[in-house]
Amino acid sequence: MKSVKAFAPATVANVSCGFDILGFAIDAMGDYVEVFRKEEPGLKVISIEDDGGKLPWEVEKNTCAVAIQAMLDDYGQEIGMDIALKKGLPLGSGMGSSAASAVAALVAANRLLGDPYERKDLLPFAIVAEKAACGAGHADNVAPSLLGGFVLIRDYHPLDVIKLHVPDSLYCTLLHPHFQLNTSDSRSVLRDAIPLKHSTIQSGNVAGFVSGLYQEDYELISRSMRDVIAEPYRAVLIPGFYEVREALKAAGALGMGISGSGPTLFALSKGAEKSKEIAKAAEEIYQNIGLGVDVYYSAINTRGAYVLEENK
Amino acid sequence: MKSVKAFAPATVANVSCGFDILGFAIDAMGDYVEVFRKEEPGLKVISIEDDGGKLPWEVEKNTCAVAIQAMLDDYGQEIGMDIALKKGLPLGSGMGSSAASAVAALVAANRLLGDPYERKDLLPFAIVAEKAACGAGHADNVAPSLLGGFVLIRDYHPLDVIKLHVPDSLYCTLLHPHFQLNTSDSRSVLRDAIPLKHSTIQSGNVAGFVSGLYQEDYELISRSMRDVIAEPYRAVLIPGFYEVREALKAAGALGMGISGSGPTLFALSKGAEKSKEIAKAAEEIYQNIGLGVDVYYSAINTRGAYVLEENK
Repeated sequence: MKSVKAFAPATVANVSCGFDILGFAIDAMGDYVEVFRKEEPGLKVISIEDDGGKLPWEVEKNTCAVAIQAMLDDYGQEIGMDIALKKGLPLGSGMGSSAASAVAALVAANRLLGDPYERKDLLPFAIVAEKAACGAGHADNVAPSLLGGFVLIRDYHPLDVIKLHVPDSLYCTLLHPHFQLNTSDSRSVLRDAIPLKHSTIQSGNVAGFVSGLYQEDYELISRSMRDVIAEPYRAVLIPGFYEVREALKAAGALGMGISGSGPTLFALSKGAEKSKEIAKAAEEIYQNIGLGVDVYYSAINTRGAYVLEENK
Repeated sequence: MKSVKAFAPATVANVSCGFDILGFAIDAMGDYVEVFRKEEPGLKVISIEDDGGKLPWEVEKNTCAVAIQAMLDDYGQEIGMDIALKKGLPLGSGMGSSAASAVAALVAANRLLGDPYERKDLLPFAIVAEKAACGAGHADNVAPSLLGGFVLIRDYHPLDVIKLHVPDSLYCTLLHPHFQLNTSDSRSVLRDAIPLKHSTIQSGNVAGFVSGLYQEDYELISRSMRDVIAEPYRAVLIPGFYEVREALKAAGALGMGISGSGPTLFALSKGAEKSKEIAKAAEEIYQNIGLGVDVYYSAINTRGAYVLEENK
């Protein structure tokens, strides 16, 4: 039976100063989706592994199926597919878990059809799936998972997604502390209106961050990693936030922020060795805090999701 | 008598999406300051040309003298200098007129002392002069006038000024309509608080604009030239704003915005020829509106202020 298996990477959205507009992809982890062509039309979820039994199997709710259905609706042909999802990412962690599932499903299904869609053209289908999974059609996880590297969502109407330059030596350390944080809580603490002054500070930092990426100026990247819009309100929901940041910066992190709406934290660093040292410092500080943590370090994924296997 | 004459270019601050953080310098016009070494200590303004008699001669108020005094206070020696200013820029036009005077004075005086200061180190003295002239110590005119090119003011505390990449074919057209607009009026229409959504839109556009400069992507620059923070409130103070913009975009402008706090408008374009065509379109549309206008077109000045003449 014809089948395609694809991988889509974990992602960090917001990236401190890039609230709701920046995201990047991580080499180290992600989700796996295998799609099987079948005779009878219609989609079916045939297996879900490593989700702790939490993800829905119904095609109207499963993020993989919703994404593929959106693509097939556009494609205009009823094609039968069975879908097998293997989670590599923890759910609700702020690492773009639902986005990675949708993107892996789309990349696999697109290849199964003979790649009728360019990579960028899959994005709207992934956004449909994000809306089904999270209630909001954000693109700051799906776009970097699909395209790789650092991605700017300049605008949604119409969608304008820009791949930014990624310095070779930029590495990431991710810390996933063992506690639950609801996305809705994390969203509800934000203010609807902000001082003009804060908007100007945020603009200055995001412009500095983007400039730092292009200039490969790690010090500038570091100075620009400041979020005055979401972080001050969300940090209080994350135990030990400022203590952890201090420890990570002491270990050489360029900066640390909240991945998506948390609770996962991310740190950027120059060089692979430094990202390991930061990971070690993270384990130590969480031991002091008395909270379990999973720590990962990784290069930036610059190619995005990709096909792992094809069976003709 | 030992003397140095310097030129400092006109500047466009804000640059649409870069409210309070971006500025760039223009080749075509600027101010001239000649500084003469004299025996007795103290500063003296000995001539001001082409200001219509409007600028102050007192050393405590004259922007050239205030800037040089700030430098000498830091330098720690009482050096006598006579200052001659020749305005090339109209006052209160939004083209960084006071900034160009201060910067030309500093570059001339610094050379007279044997260049004890690096270019970037003159910036705090120029900001002192801006504060004296405008009441607010903004850097988005003085920094590009001093350094040239596109400049990002990432932060003021401490001052963090970043020179951005300038695409070779980027040109500017400036329109100075014949009417007065007080900076204080232009400032007072702004809101102290803005919707979070607007801040996100502004951030996306400034990140897109900066990325467009580095990628030399003129279409991206064009799409990013959108200001949701200041322009909607200031445009109503500028007769024919939207009509002019439509005409300029039809003539090939990448975008049009308010230079500083106005009333001067600027348009960016790809190529020198296009900037001339836009200038022609501007003259026609202002004739229709029934308002006099001075129109200039120019390359981006990438070297900033410079010494024109030295007499030993």
